[in-house]
Amino acid sequence: MHDVQNYPDDRNITVDQVGIWDIEYPVVVKDRANKTQSTVASVDISVQLLPRFKGTHMSRFVAVLNSVKGEITMSNIPEILKKTRETLESPQAIIALRFPYFIEKSAPVTQISSTFAIQVLFSGFSDAASGDSFILGVRVPVTSLCPCSKEISSYGAHNQRSFVTLYVQFSDFIWIEDLVHDVEECASCAIYPLLKREDERFVTEKAYETPVFAEDIVRNVTEKMMQNNKISWFMVETLHLESIHAHNAYARVERFKKQSPLLSEHLRMFKGFPKIQTLL
Amino acid sequence: MHDVQNYPDDRNITVDQVGIWDIEYPVVVKDRANKTQSTVASVDISVQLLPRFKGTHMSRFVAVLNSVKGEITMSNIPEILKKTRETLESPQAIIALRFPYFIEKSAPVTQISSTFAIQVLFSGFSDAASGDSFILGVRVPVTSLCPCSKEISSYGAHNQRSFVTLYVQFSDFIWIEDLVHDVEECASCAIYPLLKREDERFVTEKAYETPVFAEDIVRNVTEKMMQNNKISWFMVETLHLESIHAHNAYARVERFKKQSPLLSEHLRMFKGFPKIQTLL
Amino acid sequence: MHDVQNYPDDRNITVDQVGIWDIEYPVVVKDRANKTQSTVASVDISVQLLPRFKGTHMSRFVAVLNSVKGEITMSNIPEILKKTRETLESPQAIIALRFPYFIEKSAPVTQISSTFAIQVLFSGFSDAASGDSFILGVRVPVTSLCPCSKEISSYGAHNQRSFVTLYVQFSDFIWIEDLVHDVEECASCAIYPLLKREDERFVTEKAYETPVFAEDIVRNVTEKMMQNNKISWFMVETLHLESIHAHNAYARVERFKKQSPLLSEHLRMFKGFPKIQTLL
Amino acid sequence: MHDVQNYPDDRNITVDQVGIWDIEYPVVVKDRANKTQSTVASVDISVQLLPRFKGTHMSRFVAVLNSVKGEITMSNIPEILKKTRETLESPQAIIALRFPYFIEKSAPVTQISSTFAIQVLFSGFSDAASGDSFILGVRVPVTSLCPCSKEISSYGAHNQRSFVTLYVQFSDFIWIEDLVHDVEECASCAIYPLLKREDERFVTEKAYETPVFAEDIVRNVTEKMMQNNKISWFMVETLHLESIHAHNAYARVERFKKQSPLLSEHLRMFKGFPKIQTLL
Repeated sequence: MHDVQNYPDDRNITVDQVGIWDIEYPVVVKDRANKTQSTVASVDISVQLLPRFKGTHMSRFVAVLNSVKGEITMSNIPEILKKTRETLESPQAIIALRFPYFIEKSAPVTQISSTFAIQVLFSGFSDAASGDSFILGVRVPVTSLCPCSKEISSYGAHNQRSFVTLYVQFSDFIWIEDLVHDVEECASCAIYPLLKREDERFVTEKAYETPVFAEDIVRNVTEKMMQNNKISWFMVETLHLESIHAHNAYARVERFKKQSPLLSEHLRMFKGFPKIQTLL
Repeated sequence: MHDVQNYPDDRNITVDQVGIWDIEYPVVVKDRANKTQSTVASVDISVQLLPRFKGTHMSRFVAVLNSVKGEITMSNIPEILKKTRETLESPQAIIALRFPYFIEKSAPVTQISSTFAIQVLFSGFSDAASGDSFILGVRVPVTSLCPCSKEISSYGAHNQRSFVTLYVQFSDFIWIEDLVHDVEECASCAIYPLLKREDERFVTEKAYETPVFAEDIVRNVTEKMMQNNKISWFMVETLHLESIHAHNAYARVERFKKQSPLLSEHLRMFKGFPKIQTLL
Repeated sequence: MHDVQNYPDDRNITVDQVGIWDIEYPVVVKDRANKTQSTVASVDISVQLLPRFKGTHMSRFVAVLNSVKGEITMSNIPEILKKTRETLESPQAIIALRFPYFIEKSAPVTQISSTFAIQVLFSGFSDAASGDSFILGVRVPVTSLCPCSKEISSYGAHNQRSFVTLYVQFSDFIWIEDLVHDVEECASCAIYPLLKREDERFVTEKAYETPVFAEDIVRNVTEKMMQNNKISWFMVETLHLESIHAHNAYARVERFKKQSPLLSEHLRMFKGFPKIQTLL
Repeated sequence: MHDVQNYPDDRNITVDQVGIWDIEYPVVVKDRANKTQSTVASVDISVQLLPRFKGTHMSRFVAVLNSVKGEITMSNIPEILKKTRETLESPQAIIALRFPYFIEKSAPVTQISSTFAIQVLFSGFSDAASGDSFILGVRVPVTSLCPCSKEISSYGAHNQRSFVTLYVQFSDFIWIEDLVHDVEECASCAIYPLLKREDERFVTEKAYETPVFAEDIVRNVTEKMMQNNKISWFMVETLHLESIHAHNAYARVERFKKQSPLLSEHLRMFKGFPKIQTLL
């Protein structure tokens, strides 16, 4: 049987990325409270294809994933990408994993604990010449309460579920849990899976006392990230499912504390979380 | 060329429905304010396939849609379905159109007008022996404010964007606009595309003065639908994108004011709007 | 603090369902190969609300889920629903779990094994007077190859990824793996996560030798389900992402081998998998 | 009433973007065959917020859209953005419109005409100092047939629906229809809404005669775009809904024929089409 992918190609065009997308895969990731947790990721993995090859060998991407048996952490991604580059004879490889990550969270007054899902993204990029780059992303639901609505009204204030998405590049290891905590401190109130009456009173009043615009949330996160010496680059977005409108409010800040050609190359191919969409 | 679809089939099995789904199609629908409006529908259309046929002729469904040039109203759906049944030699046909429908809406204080989208569903069913059945659906975004949060807190109250979905079967013609208005009266406040400061104050205070649970919204709609003599059947659902949780609150009521085998048969195959999902 | 939900309600309206929807939750389910597997479910749980109550206590739904720590199997769902009914003082409760379920699958020629995801639905309904009802659903990707395209063309035949969705009610225990296998036998070819060249040749030729219309798939599944004495009711749907069209082909069959008022009541509230949608 | 948004802010942080997202809006766009066509867009519009302002005035974005009454073309976007910048006292504004665009398409043999939807993106960026930048995007469904599967099999070849996404920046005006045509020539076969038997035979055989990998499609488009002197930058992606796998194949090429700081700034904030996702 012929190896069609290895046929020569005369168009002399490098394909920036070729690979497999949207594999639903069970993974085991590191967890501060329990050491590891089992979850399910959607995985995209691809390589650069040099001009001389007609095609890549798609089945080898799946074989690489199988070889680590779904144990994928921030620390073994460089190794996975190196293996991918070697198996597929390519100078560059990029991987993205998106998965729900579960944190036990205690209600603010009663302290009853419950399981809370946030969305996490691991994006790893590997270049044979320049080295490895890693971006961590978290998408965290929070409560936001509108300062304008509060100030102009005699009572009440519109508030809503909002999603803050934060992508960071860092020098020293960072816990997902710490990033989530940072984000929650920048909103009107954190969100909890289980609230008894005393807790509900607390979060209602806390949000009313802490009004924030979309602009405030991204500025608050920016202040924290600028002060955090581990962070070399970040991008923060917030999307508010406005309770008084059918459209959403959006704000975004990106800052490079240290420029690098490797990060630029990574960002050129970087895909974060999908656009948040409410399907009707 | 052989007509494979017309080959005989010896399995002796009626296929309840076979057809084409998810055609994105420009349509012109009736509109109370402007007579007609142009929008884009996702269309599903299918027929019953008798045991003697191996397959149906899928291209004829598209041909039927083309023959009305996208002019699809509540009143010509029976004719479209009759044509479909005849062209495809079938005793039963069913069609669903889902589309955004635009209403000009005035802000509550300044009266500034703006365009507001709600989701509409037309579901038509036609049986050669029993006749025609039609279900109209609307999906309307509203504000809901939690009665419990308001009562137990010294100030503030959590509120959120909610979606009320109402399906009705009726004897006399009903305007989409009237159903939307009915639904909006059952929530804490209606939603507007454009609000100036005076308007924002109004909707904030109105919602605070009108707290409703998910349970209240469906009960309020139920009262209205029970009192409306045009309505013979309805189903109402509400989904609240809770601002203090990452999950949603849901409530539902269905009532048959008049039972009929035709409606039962229609409901057995009825697909309403897709499940509301916030994609992260 | 007042218990607002326990306030009396004078509208005299039963709410058919009220509860929480779309909780993303880590679960452990039974697995034929490995005894259990960890995955992530989206959970909907609700109860009937009697006319005398103003509202239900939403936090108790989450507490019930927490009490089983995510261990949810076909066999403990009745117990979970009983607890839910009791905690929420309701005569009826209904739960739906939708989750990816992973099966190790061997390539047809090389026998290389890899992880394959199908979608599973558990829908449980419990009525204090009538008892328990359970529906199992599977959504399986398969290859379909068009008999008409094959017969009328000198070479080639269009084929595509299709999704077969099968819901069943049964008397004796059924393995998810067996239902998946039944479905795969009714298509042109099964789908595999990892195929080497010999395997790719096999599936290409197998599909070409086994052309099926959407109508054939649902009829083939119908024959199997009618012959299976464990099955008392089923509904099968197939959706083909046609490679020569931008719309999809659809077919559906439902059969009641044994009618029961309990199943009818369950089906009236039953929500299966979401509508398959390709988001662009 | 206080204008809270105009309060001073002491954090000294520019917000890169703040605005409203996901407004569903009826629009009228230019069309080569009929001069104009009515469709429905999802619109995102935002501005840069200078450090001295606490917030932006969200309602003004909606007012700007209303002022053009939904008539949005490639040529009036600079004017819309200028108005947005002025109304919101900002040096930068960015808009994105995503909408289905309908083309009448004739079947390849019978020439029967039918309506075909492709997805279009208009992305406009305006900077008070540097000027205007525009990116046009099209997302086109095509058929792809696998060269490897064809070569190694005695008969048949797997094929599938694929989506090619092409973003371009150009100097002279380009018709959407021409870009779509370019893309279709790079695949195994174009897709049609309505095919009679003779047409189905044609597309089946045409695809079998024209096998392409994902890599081939993006290389073919690259050749065309490199040769087209109007194009100064492009990015092409293809996603194949593989008929023999449950995951997708992906390939991507981006080329800068002319670098410009304005384009770089635009791309930093550019959001293309959402990630293609098949929701199950």
